[in-house]
Amino acid sequence: MSSPSTESSRPKVVVTRDLGPDVMPLLRARRDLDVVTWPENRVVDRNWLLQNIPGALGVLVMMTEKVDEELLDAAGPSLRVVSTMSVGYEHADLPELAKRGIKFGYTPDVLTDAVADLSVMLALMASRIAGEVISLVQNNQWPTVSWAPFNLCGYQLSTSRTSPKRTVGFLGFGRISQATLARLIPFGITDCIYTANPSSPPQPSRDEQLLKRHGLNSLRRVDMDELARESDVLFVLAPGGPATRHLINEDFLRKMKVTSVLVNTSRGTLVDSEALAKALREKWIWGAGVDVVEGEPNVTTDHPLVKEPRCIVLPHVGSGTFETRVGMATLAVQNLLAGIDGGSNMPAALDLRNKL
Amino acid sequence: MSSPSTESSRPKVVVTRDLGPDVMPLLRARRDLDVVTWPENRVVDRNWLLQNIPGALGVLVMMTEKVDEELLDAAGPSLRVVSTMSVGYEHADLPELAKRGIKFGYTPDVLTDAVADLSVMLALMASRIAGEVISLVQNNQWPTVSWAPFNLCGYQLSTSRTSPKRTVGFLGFGRISQATLARLIPFGITDCIYTANPSSPPQPSRDEQLLKRHGLNSLRRVDMDELARESDVLFVLAPGGPATRHLINEDFLRKMKVTSVLVNTSRGTLVDSEALAKALREKWIWGAGVDVVEGEPNVTTDHPLVKEPRCIVLPHVGSGTFETRVGMATLAVQNLLAGIDGGSNMPAALDLRNKL
Repeated sequence: MSSPSTESSRPKVVVTRDLGPDVMPLLRARRDLDVVTWPENRVVDRNWLLQNIPGALGVLVMMTEKVDEELLDAAGPSLRVVSTMSVGYEHADLPELAKRGIKFGYTPDVLTDAVADLSVMLALMASRIAGEVISLVQNNQWPTVSWAPFNLCGYQLSTSRTSPKRTVGFLGFGRISQATLARLIPFGITDCIYTANPSSPPQPSRDEQLLKRHGLNSLRRVDMDELARESDVLFVLAPGGPATRHLINEDFLRKMKVTSVLVNTSRGTLVDSEALAKALREKWIWGAGVDVVEGEPNVTTDHPLVKEPRCIVLPHVGSGTFETRVGMATLAVQNLLAGIDGGSNMPAALDLRNKL
Repeated sequence: MSSPSTESSRPKVVVTRDLGPDVMPLLRARRDLDVVTWPENRVVDRNWLLQNIPGALGVLVMMTEKVDEELLDAAGPSLRVVSTMSVGYEHADLPELAKRGIKFGYTPDVLTDAVADLSVMLALMASRIAGEVISLVQNNQWPTVSWAPFNLCGYQLSTSRTSPKRTVGFLGFGRISQATLARLIPFGITDCIYTANPSSPPQPSRDEQLLKRHGLNSLRRVDMDELARESDVLFVLAPGGPATRHLINEDFLRKMKVTSVLVNTSRGTLVDSEALAKALREKWIWGAGVDVVEGEPNVTTDHPLVKEPRCIVLPHVGSGTFETRVGMATLAVQNLLAGIDGGSNMPAALDLRNKL
């Protein structure tokens, strides 16, 4: 790779992060391209990016980089593709990209399993009061805690003789929800309910297929009221943005079972943090596990959810496995290369036609 | 229930803990019995027990009560049954019980699902460096941690395009191991290996059945060497005692994959704590999750495993769900009542014939 300051007659692509030894060779193999990579192990300096992007055919960015008019103007008319190593695209001005006819690649699907794994982990941790029992050990209390038949207990994710029916609920029922559901089947989950975007049509044949494949007693699309009232474990797995902001609010949480747990591994904005903290404090629900929080990463130790012992808070590590990040980086490179070659073979291009 | 000091002409049973509103009515329903219950919400006072047990037909104990010669002498020849609300029986002198012809009930099976749930939770937590990422949030570092493609990553429990083969290993392959295996199947686990007590015969037809039911590529009984070398996730699920002490030692841990995780939810004595801490510190393995530690509950914050960021330490909460504890207490009562009625209908009596 050339250093940023080297002039080259080859067409240029800009990459805002070293993608590691598994993925960088895919870029280096394209000897017809000048690959300009931000050399440091931190978020790319905006000025460096603005100075290096002029004339580039493509740019591969992280979700930390704002793709706005300023950046696109700096790139100039040569720019054919923006490829982001993320499934979200809140950092990109899609209408502006559409107007300029620039392709936009992202990385859906490849992180489904990593997020589903984490969702199951958080459901178990919230059910089994993992935050409290870990703290107990870390605070040197194990030697003195007294064993008692119902001490340090949680509710059981698996069915049992006394709880033979377990209903799992999904706010949003896309790929990650379905992958999470599949993982819960051997725990004995008997029923599944979900809500979907009101504008999306019912999918009776898909639902019938899932019901049969998993041997469930029922699988139904429901309204928010029933989702709140019936879920033993509720997974929030929906897109962010204004349309879904605070769908989980005080009204919703007050309807939930006192034995239920809530897991959010999608977008922090879906949940009203103050309301969830209150629900946990006042024991409207049993526990919660969140990998995302509204306003992240500015979530400090005085945040109501971080202070709440019954809330597990993780720093947005849903896609955080080496396998998945390599998969995302690989897909981002494939999108970039196919994008500069015309864009028709991009494995995951976002359709921008309705973004104008 | 009569208070301990009340004289009664009815035959007596002694219960060392209030078993809660779901279970105590099963005892109270036996109006022919005088049920003497330790009234406080702490471990029974030994003197109280010694003073109240004389003449009892049966005693229901927790694993916190030593069932030794002293206690059996105090009870006298009336004692027909000891029923423990636990799956373990290290606290009971089995040869002494056998010699006296006293039945012994315990509570296996009912905790299988609770422990399997916790085993899966710990496997996910160890893989996804849950201890470290939770600490990061609790230590106020989320606002300043820099996102990077491979930052805060763990290894993925689920299979992926780059890791299409995942081998789960079990040290001990009883009910809990098999229930844990079943839960891992939708994560895409492809292969299963296990070790068993050397004196136990091979079970080819059971193994064939499990292989087919779960659609695995392979399921095999192996030796300790292969278990160490091939497991991506290793579950320690075997009985405690001298025969299995420190089966997981430095030699074993050195053979494990650097990307592997170890989970112990059975008995602390199986794992050499110092060796495991060293393995984590020197990165012979990726992570560990333990619900049991040798010497518990005297496990303080200067314990090498508690100090190790890559080790999740829980305070022995494997059976800690309300559903399971109610199930265990119910079974313990059933064992007690059937035991005083002659013992032939005890749902879970330990066979003491070979303990003499």
